[in-house]
Amino acid sequence: MQTELHSKTKTVVIGPDQPFVMIGERLNPSGRKKLGAEMAAGDFSRVRKDALSQVAAGAHVLDVNAGVPLADESDLLVAAIRAVQTVTDVPICIDSSVAEALIAGLAAYEGRALVNSVTGEDERLDQVLPLVKKYGAAVIGMANDDTGISTDPHFRLGVARKILHRALDYGLKPEDVLIDPLALTVAADPQAVQCTLHTMRLVRDELGLNLVCGASNISFGLPDRSPINAAYLSMGMLCGLTCAITDPTNPMLRQAMLAGDVLMGHDEYAARWIGDFRARQKAAAAAAAAPAA
Amino acid sequence: MQTELHSKTKTVVIGPDQPFVMIGERLNPSGRKKLGAEMAAGDFSRVRKDALSQVAAGAHVLDVNAGVPLADESDLLVAAIRAVQTVTDVPICIDSSVAEALIAGLAAYEGRALVNSVTGEDERLDQVLPLVKKYGAAVIGMANDDTGISTDPHFRLGVARKILHRALDYGLKPEDVLIDPLALTVAADPQAVQCTLHTMRLVRDELGLNLVCGASNISFGLPDRSPINAAYLSMGMLCGLTCAITDPTNPMLRQAMLAGDVLMGHDEYAARWIGDFRARQKAAAAAAAAPAA
Repeated sequence: MQTELHSKTKTVVIGPDQPFVMIGERLNPSGRKKLGAEMAAGDFSRVRKDALSQVAAGAHVLDVNAGVPLADESDLLVAAIRAVQTVTDVPICIDSSVAEALIAGLAAYEGRALVNSVTGEDERLDQVLPLVKKYGAAVIGMANDDTGISTDPHFRLGVARKILHRALDYGLKPEDVLIDPLALTVAADPQAVQCTLHTMRLVRDELGLNLVCGASNISFGLPDRSPINAAYLSMGMLCGLTCAITDPTNPMLRQAMLAGDVLMGHDEYAARWIGDFRARQKAAAAAAAAPAA
Repeated sequence: MQTELHSKTKTVVIGPDQPFVMIGERLNPSGRKKLGAEMAAGDFSRVRKDALSQVAAGAHVLDVNAGVPLADESDLLVAAIRAVQTVTDVPICIDSSVAEALIAGLAAYEGRALVNSVTGEDERLDQVLPLVKKYGAAVIGMANDDTGISTDPHFRLGVARKILHRALDYGLKPEDVLIDPLALTVAADPQAVQCTLHTMRLVRDELGLNLVCGASNISFGLPDRSPINAAYLSMGMLCGLTCAITDPTNPMLRQAMLAGDVLMGHDEYAARWIGDFRARQKAAAAAAAAPAA
């Protein structure tokens, strides 16, 4: 199963035989008050800067969210997408739960976007999937519905299957649907991660779909979260996770994803690992030399 | 399957429902010339110091190897085991391929040791397994034989099965046998790690035995090895790895193992993770305050 995303000039392929795809999560005003305030004031300089820094850190796709309270999400989303497109050529993941904003964003985006996201509720499916089809996008299906988030991996698989079938009804193809298996924090339920990993294996083995997840929910409420998120990404990759919405500027997460490619056999002779190491060495040497210059 | 190791006063339990067991690897003169020279000269101060630092970093068991060229391995091994026993109460993994040294070490050790290791060759099995039985120890079986290291996981499973059956013939129990699935460097063969992980799953699912490995072979020849070894440990834990011979004083490896316990559901409510974080914070604060004192 290969899911292709496009910008005007670039194609990213997500699939079980491909290097892991990092979707940069930072263009999101939730939890980033300053970013939200600037966006609402029409200042997209931080958006452009954070787009560039994530791509420099290895992001293959950028998630763009413009949910700022009291602001017009459609306008902000379009402006943010345009701002990102002016500075980078990576495909965009359009992140909104507001249908109007989604339509505006899809119309403004030049390429094949990833839509983040649709749940398994009928109303949402019938609202979002026709848009995904109309604009030739791909979509992330969340494995929950109006009954909430189940702790039973087989129930989550059922929701994923429902999303897939509804997507096929709307004329989409299996490769247009990525599944988020959902992750609750392991601090509240010691089995939470095993449930998520089990869901991944079921979706991979039964539906053959690509899997995506956020990498930080699982460690919510815990101190020193990066090593936990990194270990989670490593385990996920072994269970069919083919991309993640996460922060590539976090060195530990970034290295976990690159190391995972080596271990999965997706970085032959570790050529990219070694290249990345050399680039970091060079950057460190340049940084060390800078004050003397 | 639960494998118990004992010192005079302490029991360590290795098993799939248990927290991951870290076996400290540093008491080994291979690649540590200074340590080897000191041991040969009868100076075991570094052995004691490195025993303590590994236990302080969380090692549950200490591997002790005394293979110093031109020195009497039996004498050095006995002296090293005694030195370790005087400063710590963790069980010991006696690491020698020389039968005489193994006998001397087993005789000197007060407790139930882990023997590292035996391969699947008839001659080795018939030499080592009776000693393991006689001294009431447990043993690591390496999944290779006189034909070398196979790249076929099913062949490695076959060697593991042979070791298990021979051990049973000698009166040992399944819990007395841990299997090392063998890991070659991924730099030379992109599929090396997947082969090892596949072997782990086969040994876990078909034989139900505990699995152990070294964590650093896979990254041999690569730069910046810790993130790769850490990701490997995370993946291994998902495939049945229940302990590893590695360096707990390496923060990234140590945190990968502790994080793995959280994710596997073996650290309820992340109590140990949080406790470890607090202890590190406290140690850092104490270190920061020290110069002022």
